[in-house]
Amino acid sequence: MLMQSAQPAGPCHIVITGGAGFLGVRLARTLLAQGQLSLAGAPPASITRITLVDRAAPPADLLADARVTALTGDLNELLEEKDAVAPVVTKDTAIVFHLAAAVSGECEADFDLGMRSNFAATLALLQACRAVKTKPVVVFASSLAVFGDSPEQPIPPAIEDNTLPTPQSSYGIQKFIGEQLVADYTRKGFIRGRNVRLMTVSVRPGKPNAAASSFLSGMIREPLAGVRAACPVAPDTPVALSSPARTVQGIIRAAEASDQAWGPRTALTLPALTTTPAEMAAALERVAGPEVVALIDWVPDPAIHNIVKTWPARIHAVRAAGLGLLPEENFDDIIQEYIRENPYAVKLPIR
Amino acid sequence: MLMQSAQPAGPCHIVITGGAGFLGVRLARTLLAQGQLSLAGAPPASITRITLVDRAAPPADLLADARVTALTGDLNELLEEKDAVAPVVTKDTAIVFHLAAAVSGECEADFDLGMRSNFAATLALLQACRAVKTKPVVVFASSLAVFGDSPEQPIPPAIEDNTLPTPQSSYGIQKFIGEQLVADYTRKGFIRGRNVRLMTVSVRPGKPNAAASSFLSGMIREPLAGVRAACPVAPDTPVALSSPARTVQGIIRAAEASDQAWGPRTALTLPALTTTPAEMAAALERVAGPEVVALIDWVPDPAIHNIVKTWPARIHAVRAAGLGLLPEENFDDIIQEYIRENPYAVKLPIR
Repeated sequence: MLMQSAQPAGPCHIVITGGAGFLGVRLARTLLAQGQLSLAGAPPASITRITLVDRAAPPADLLADARVTALTGDLNELLEEKDAVAPVVTKDTAIVFHLAAAVSGECEADFDLGMRSNFAATLALLQACRAVKTKPVVVFASSLAVFGDSPEQPIPPAIEDNTLPTPQSSYGIQKFIGEQLVADYTRKGFIRGRNVRLMTVSVRPGKPNAAASSFLSGMIREPLAGVRAACPVAPDTPVALSSPARTVQGIIRAAEASDQAWGPRTALTLPALTTTPAEMAAALERVAGPEVVALIDWVPDPAIHNIVKTWPARIHAVRAAGLGLLPEENFDDIIQEYIRENPYAVKLPIR
Repeated sequence: MLMQSAQPAGPCHIVITGGAGFLGVRLARTLLAQGQLSLAGAPPASITRITLVDRAAPPADLLADARVTALTGDLNELLEEKDAVAPVVTKDTAIVFHLAAAVSGECEADFDLGMRSNFAATLALLQACRAVKTKPVVVFASSLAVFGDSPEQPIPPAIEDNTLPTPQSSYGIQKFIGEQLVADYTRKGFIRGRNVRLMTVSVRPGKPNAAASSFLSGMIREPLAGVRAACPVAPDTPVALSSPARTVQGIIRAAEASDQAWGPRTALTLPALTTTPAEMAAALERVAGPEVVALIDWVPDPAIHNIVKTWPARIHAVRAAGLGLLPEENFDDIIQEYIRENPYAVKLPIR
């Protein structure tokens, strides 16, 4: 029987871990706006429910949507709970977007926290998906942090789809282990897994955080708000970035691509724009004028520079391109997108 | 103060998990015979104790050595035991050779068994090594099974030191995850880890087992004992092999190499002889005569052939060569070694 029809098949229950985080919220809003989702190449299904699992409560606009349920608590505790009234994963769960994670700085400072939040939680989530026996799709948000440069093992000039990851952080190791677990749970037929490696996201709205990459949003976001911000690395340091929109596009494509289009169980590295802080500042000047750019303080911080320079800056994302996922062409567009989406965060007059 | 002296520094307490298994026993005998061990480039230390941890008891010759202690039980249970009278790892443990594992066939048939025996046990062992706070050396026996060919992701014609593993079995995934854990525990300074990938060992003495690779020993061992044996793959199927002696040499080199000589935390792939069953049979004929070779039954088994053909057959082990680890030059030598070491298992007259 052919299932081709203008009417979406359904229903489709979605779980997003880290659902109150920056990417989780954006993903939920995007999914609710599109109203339907094609699961791994299947005909589109109506999105009937999105469960946002997070320690924090999601924003009011999401809670106001009748299709949204919030499951608030520690992910490990929610998964460990026997006979939970509201389990994280049920037989109705069509897809889990697993975005919840402790960030790299936390994992480096507190090894056990990282092992619990990134590693044990991922394993417990996969076991929960296996236990329902309905083979849910699982999109695992891995990270470019699986790659890391070191004197003993330099990374190649550009990351290829088959480049060997040599993580130089516990966060990177934990993400890489998560990829392996998702791959084997998929091979065994317990889930239909999709490993997708995200880039540093810029321009990220909101406040600075403790991540070494924080300045890559802050040096644009703060000046647009009339606030001074530091760039702690050399202006010509190459960096790989992706906008929030392209990042969410990549995550959704991972959910929707057919098995054949997706290809191997190995993680797919998303594309990135390679730029430099100097080029980012030049773009900011073109978009917002010299008064805005003058708010950037070029204050080198060797500690941050030494971390950032171990990150890959050039991504040769052939597999992603085959799925229609391309990097932004220039940073000007990324700034324009940020201004369009965050008008209240822009205080200075834009030319 | 220079520590160069003819007298070994000491003492050196060694733990071998899987210590009653084929490789564990051979490693223990080799270490006892050499009497001392240079830990990660340090001056040689006297081997004062070897603890053999295994579900089975070690053979009598090992138990008769005053330096040998047997710790018999399930590795997970031994590690979980609080306030154990005889813990697996103590402050005196200078080095752990972690060889214990469920084999590939078991892990494929029983996913949870593999996750417990290969994955959870390795993590618990690393936590025990971290808890003693003395940074023991840990040699982790990984496997060529981290590599696997699949239609979606073919392996390259030869495995290089930086080839991306794409495991096609739960065993391979679990070993690859173990490598990542050992790497990060090392980077964090909890242990001094050495990941070393072993090859299929041939000729393995003893009885056939359920492994798909079992015939690669059996087709030599059984005919030498006057017993018929099957070769279930096409005679020209390329396979990568290492003798028991070279395998143990590689494991000990991993323990003894200085950090600088060893290089990155990424696993070191041991060298292998690339041969074919046809060439192995020709070697057997040269060494033992046509009557012995006539005991090989060339009976194709598509199930085994389909597994074996996904295994890498060519290893370009540049890093191992830099440590003086080279493959055997021909299979004749491997057969000669087996005959020399197992005279009672050879029933037919050798020319």
